[in-house]
Amino acid sequence: LSFYLLNPRKNQMKAKVSIIMGSTSDLPVMEKAAKVLNDFKIPFEINALSAHRTPEQVEKFAKNAKENGIQAIIAGAGMAAHLPGVIAAMTSIPVIGVPIKASLDGMDALLSIAQMPPGIPVATVGINGAMNAGILAAQILAVGDENLQEAVIEFKEGLKEKIVKANEELSTVKYDYKTN
Amino acid sequence: LSFYLLNPRKNQMKAKVSIIMGSTSDLPVMEKAAKVLNDFKIPFEINALSAHRTPEQVEKFAKNAKENGIQAIIAGAGMAAHLPGVIAAMTSIPVIGVPIKASLDGMDALLSIAQMPPGIPVATVGINGAMNAGILAAQILAVGDENLQEAVIEFKEGLKEKIVKANEELSTVKYDYKTN
Amino acid sequence: LSFYLLNPRKNQMKAKVSIIMGSTSDLPVMEKAAKVLNDFKIPFEINALSAHRTPEQVEKFAKNAKENGIQAIIAGAGMAAHLPGVIAAMTSIPVIGVPIKASLDGMDALLSIAQMPPGIPVATVGINGAMNAGILAAQILAVGDENLQEAVIEFKEGLKEKIVKANEELSTVKYDYKTN
Amino acid sequence: LSFYLLNPRKNQMKAKVSIIMGSTSDLPVMEKAAKVLNDFKIPFEINALSAHRTPEQVEKFAKNAKENGIQAIIAGAGMAAHLPGVIAAMTSIPVIGVPIKASLDGMDALLSIAQMPPGIPVATVGINGAMNAGILAAQILAVGDENLQEAVIEFKEGLKEKIVKANEELSTVKYDYKTN
Amino acid sequence: LSFYLLNPRKNQMKAKVSIIMGSTSDLPVMEKAAKVLNDFKIPFEINALSAHRTPEQVEKFAKNAKENGIQAIIAGAGMAAHLPGVIAAMTSIPVIGVPIKASLDGMDALLSIAQMPPGIPVATVGINGAMNAGILAAQILAVGDENLQEAVIEFKEGLKEKIVKANEELSTVKYDYKTN
Amino acid sequence: LSFYLLNPRKNQMKAKVSIIMGSTSDLPVMEKAAKVLNDFKIPFEINALSAHRTPEQVEKFAKNAKENGIQAIIAGAGMAAHLPGVIAAMTSIPVIGVPIKASLDGMDALLSIAQMPPGIPVATVGINGAMNAGILAAQILAVGDENLQEAVIEFKEGLKEKIVKANEELSTVKYDYKTN
Amino acid sequence: LSFYLLNPRKNQMKAKVSIIMGSTSDLPVMEKAAKVLNDFKIPFEINALSAHRTPEQVEKFAKNAKENGIQAIIAGAGMAAHLPGVIAAMTSIPVIGVPIKASLDGMDALLSIAQMPPGIPVATVGINGAMNAGILAAQILAVGDENLQEAVIEFKEGLKEKIVKANEELSTVKYDYKTN
Amino acid sequence: LSFYLLNPRKNQMKAKVSIIMGSTSDLPVMEKAAKVLNDFKIPFEINALSAHRTPEQVEKFAKNAKENGIQAIIAGAGMAAHLPGVIAAMTSIPVIGVPIKASLDGMDALLSIAQMPPGIPVATVGINGAMNAGILAAQILAVGDENLQEAVIEFKEGLKEKIVKANEELSTVKYDYKTN
Repeated sequence: LSFYLLNPRKNQMKAKVSIIMGSTSDLPVMEKAAKVLNDFKIPFEINALSAHRTPEQVEKFAKNAKENGIQAIIAGAGMAAHLPGVIAAMTSIPVIGVPIKASLDGMDALLSIAQMPPGIPVATVGINGAMNAGILAAQILAVGDENLQEAVIEFKEGLKEKIVKANEELSTVKYDYKTN
Repeated sequence: LSFYLLNPRKNQMKAKVSIIMGSTSDLPVMEKAAKVLNDFKIPFEINALSAHRTPEQVEKFAKNAKENGIQAIIAGAGMAAHLPGVIAAMTSIPVIGVPIKASLDGMDALLSIAQMPPGIPVATVGINGAMNAGILAAQILAVGDENLQEAVIEFKEGLKEKIVKANEELSTVKYDYKTN
Repeated sequence: LSFYLLNPRKNQMKAKVSIIMGSTSDLPVMEKAAKVLNDFKIPFEINALSAHRTPEQVEKFAKNAKENGIQAIIAGAGMAAHLPGVIAAMTSIPVIGVPIKASLDGMDALLSIAQMPPGIPVATVGINGAMNAGILAAQILAVGDENLQEAVIEFKEGLKEKIVKANEELSTVKYDYKTN
Repeated sequence: LSFYLLNPRKNQMKAKVSIIMGSTSDLPVMEKAAKVLNDFKIPFEINALSAHRTPEQVEKFAKNAKENGIQAIIAGAGMAAHLPGVIAAMTSIPVIGVPIKASLDGMDALLSIAQMPPGIPVATVGINGAMNAGILAAQILAVGDENLQEAVIEFKEGLKEKIVKANEELSTVKYDYKTN
Repeated sequence: LSFYLLNPRKNQMKAKVSIIMGSTSDLPVMEKAAKVLNDFKIPFEINALSAHRTPEQVEKFAKNAKENGIQAIIAGAGMAAHLPGVIAAMTSIPVIGVPIKASLDGMDALLSIAQMPPGIPVATVGINGAMNAGILAAQILAVGDENLQEAVIEFKEGLKEKIVKANEELSTVKYDYKTN
Repeated sequence: LSFYLLNPRKNQMKAKVSIIMGSTSDLPVMEKAAKVLNDFKIPFEINALSAHRTPEQVEKFAKNAKENGIQAIIAGAGMAAHLPGVIAAMTSIPVIGVPIKASLDGMDALLSIAQMPPGIPVATVGINGAMNAGILAAQILAVGDENLQEAVIEFKEGLKEKIVKANEELSTVKYDYKTN
Repeated sequence: LSFYLLNPRKNQMKAKVSIIMGSTSDLPVMEKAAKVLNDFKIPFEINALSAHRTPEQVEKFAKNAKENGIQAIIAGAGMAAHLPGVIAAMTSIPVIGVPIKASLDGMDALLSIAQMPPGIPVATVGINGAMNAGILAAQILAVGDENLQEAVIEFKEGLKEKIVKANEELSTVKYDYKTN
Repeated sequence: LSFYLLNPRKNQMKAKVSIIMGSTSDLPVMEKAAKVLNDFKIPFEINALSAHRTPEQVEKFAKNAKENGIQAIIAGAGMAAHLPGVIAAMTSIPVIGVPIKASLDGMDALLSIAQMPPGIPVATVGINGAMNAGILAAQILAVGDENLQEAVIEFKEGLKEKIVKANEELSTVKYDYKTN
């Protein structure tokens, strides 16, 4: 109930970003993308799809994404990590790929997502970099949205505060020959 | 006792797939292959053999596998991981190699198994991918077995359920701007 | 002269995409991005900037990009490859990073571009993947541009022709037991 | 003309193995698989399909392969190399993946093909290992075909001759202290 | 209070070495550099700066370092690890880079720091090698400081004691056929 | 006391193999070499030496090893791992190098030990492979020692027992379709 | 003759930087360090020394370097690349290591030089990065030398010209939709 | 004819070292081992054997090596590189493995040879390091042979001459500020 009080228009919202993962075991990583989008007040959906287990659903999703109002897709995958590339092959919407660390420190997923053949790009972020995927989606949507553009700029400004706080903490580190 | 009730023909069964490992420390990984074969009701045997410690037993096993009725061999090994390749050198039966993560994240085993010289292929699956080795063995046996073919198709269908369940779980994830 | 006949509005064009590289030695790779943008009729500019040699120019460029009408930035770099990340730190516009193969097969550049810290994403494409960077820029601009959206869809359709042609060539490969 | 004299039944042949590649640039590697199949007198077809450029054709091919009489599929791909895995997701026939060396010495393709998620195995051979892919396909088909089984055994015997010839060549290497 | 008794001149000290890190999470690694400098009685400062979050502060710091009396800068960073290189681009003071293990075992940071383009060196130490960074800073300052030179020589002599102690411990290891 | 009862000639023993390590933190790995030598009743010594901290001691040790009766040297080292190569440069005795896993999964140590320049070989074993280093030392000493030769052959025979035991354990693994 | 006209004080010069390499095959790489030092008018010497072939000469060189007036040492090495670390172990002067690409794309040398144990730093530059080694040596010497400090600042300014020239070249690249 | 004049006892010589390779394509690398052994006047034989193509011959060779007078075996192999390990499994004679660069820069062969399981060591040298394999064989044989010991010491002395010659060449490199 309280949920709807917080955002009463939720029923009418249409998702602009779609977060896709292959299994709920990827949720702890991918949720960081959700959190960022939520902070930017960008309506989004989360779905589980698998390039290998439900190829038809992937196809259906990808081919209808644009007309469903989706403007950017965030897809996370580990190991052979085909999901982002397979979706990118079936849509003209920008696809952001998140390599998930499931084996080989995530190196296999990074290569499987980034090394796409000419014609089908996937915008790859760092290993387990779902937060950055969310920010990148916001930046893409902001291309045609002045308000969101402002929010992104503000967000980037906010990053500085973390450093200010870090410096405060570092000032408590004491050594005889430390001068600050 | 109850065991034989479940599968009364066990005594007369002849193994069609042979699972080989170099040490019982590989069992937690390799047992996933056993479980898959069991689910497909494919008779199999499990043995410990070492390319380096018992080369004569490996030779004896490999050379007699075909006339013993074996149709596919699954061999797991870590580190220098010679076992699958050494077996493949001595039989015409397809050998499936499972690189086991024992050092270097399993990268050494993956290369030692996959990078076989021309003439002696090993069908390599992913690192610790014994479940997939079992499925691949079933797919190979299914080439000449319509019933098994059906079972494999059914199994692949079953993979979709995991995604359905994942989506159900994801529907419980709540954010103000999450639309589904 | 003939140039202006082809595109008489060139003088009034304002670049929407900015292609940045650190040295003209990167031009053979980065020109593929230029070609794609040109094919999509997206006005673009090409500049040489170096995160290390001209940091002030990089800063000036990045901070003014948005008000200069730039909607996406494509930055190529090899080795330590800081350029895309340094630009991304100073703008809210999406930055696409192209790892250039200059040493270690391009692995150093891929990691230096993709592994950005939380807060500052770079949309990384594959090693030497400047063509894909161009396409990705087009996809991003197309989010708010129906005509460009159409062009992207058409472009993706066109990729199929390459396969059709490949199949024609493969039909000329002759073996006794080749059936097609 | 002479072609049909060599194999007059060619017109009635139905392919049992399907060789798939994403581009004709992969032909010099993949042709080694064709040559092996031809030597084994196994009817085969060669087609160009792309997981990313022609996903519908891949789907159509994979889903109909079994009823078209295909018993094993050999798919070669470089870089992100999704083709073998995408095909494997849509068929119960064994899929043999050939990582093609197009970037990063083929390491990206090896990982993208081998590191498949549980449920969808790809039988991976070594980098550029198309000859071994052809032999593996023959070994798989031989599971239910005594004649082919014999041919595989004979082929493996034949490998020894190369060593015999190598020894003859080595006997011509002369050093004062070489004893043989 | 007791602090000032230990080093009463602290108030007048001007830092000669500046330790920079991007976040307090790097402190456990970077503190080893602080400890070494303190042991060498070299005045130093510690600050948090981020190449990506506070580029202006990085610029201000780097450009004023020399006139502020800084003679060497130690900068630690993980992942894409641009901080040392970005600082090095804006100062003529030697910059020592410490690759911090945050992902991929620190390999990404090592490459991002070491593989700098011609013109802008970063003196790279090993992964998490902050202690060595402190020693290297001392060696650099010692070039024009005989007393510090002596202290460095003494420090290197002191390293031998660890081996002497190790040998004492090893003498307690007992085996029948151990002779010492 | 009881120690000397077990091996009363200990006092007169002269070490034939020397085990060297850079720090007692390597002892848990290197002790496996000691145990093997002890089992083979080969007199050995264990010392801590560092290529970097005590180069003079390393030199003194290496140059006198032969006349002190040492016939093989086992040197373990991690990270840059110069110790085995530095010793090998100063003696004609075979040096066996053990790469110790201290960072990067031991890959740095493996390369630093194995990739020696022409003229100065180090007999490298696997990462943390001190047991194998001990066996290799025994094999080298056995070249001129028939009794030790016999012991090595016996030892290799003993390796088979581990497999026999493994098979016994595997026989307790129960599945409906397991045939053995 | 003309040589002495250019620098008549050459006879009285004492080297301040020492460039060391293990073989003349490294000269094409290492000469870039020489050229930089020459441009900075820093007297230097070049010698061939090998950690493995002439350990005594390395020791003699390293131990006397300081009293011979050397203030920084640049050592290049490939493969196991022990030379920089072995020198660093025997002097308190800063040692700059240049990993030379001789095998494995220079990765082995990079790790063997950078991953030094605590206590003995080597200031590592990029693979084949001898030019940067020369600049770093100049930066180190400039710590106590205002004139050299000025020269380094001037050198860094000069790097910008390369970018200005690159931009001029890029202005000649013509596309219909290129705006600059 | 002249051959026998050089070494008239050739007919009666029995090989003490056996060089094994899998194919004559490895001869250019492996011949460096032959040359070293010849220079040391150690009788040797060269044979082609394949762990995968002629496993029976490998077994026969390995099991009879000792009684045939072989005291050390040098085995070169590329890719999956099982040959050295498979031989080592069947003999108590020290086996020296030479990883041959045939793919992945030789990294696959290095790992497949070095990462042997406990019990079966292979003395691994660097990638393509056949010369070092020959020297190591000489060092092993020298354990019980004073004359050979002397020859090895002399050989190591000879390595210094290369450095002397390098220094002579470096003295011809001219720069204004070069002091030597």
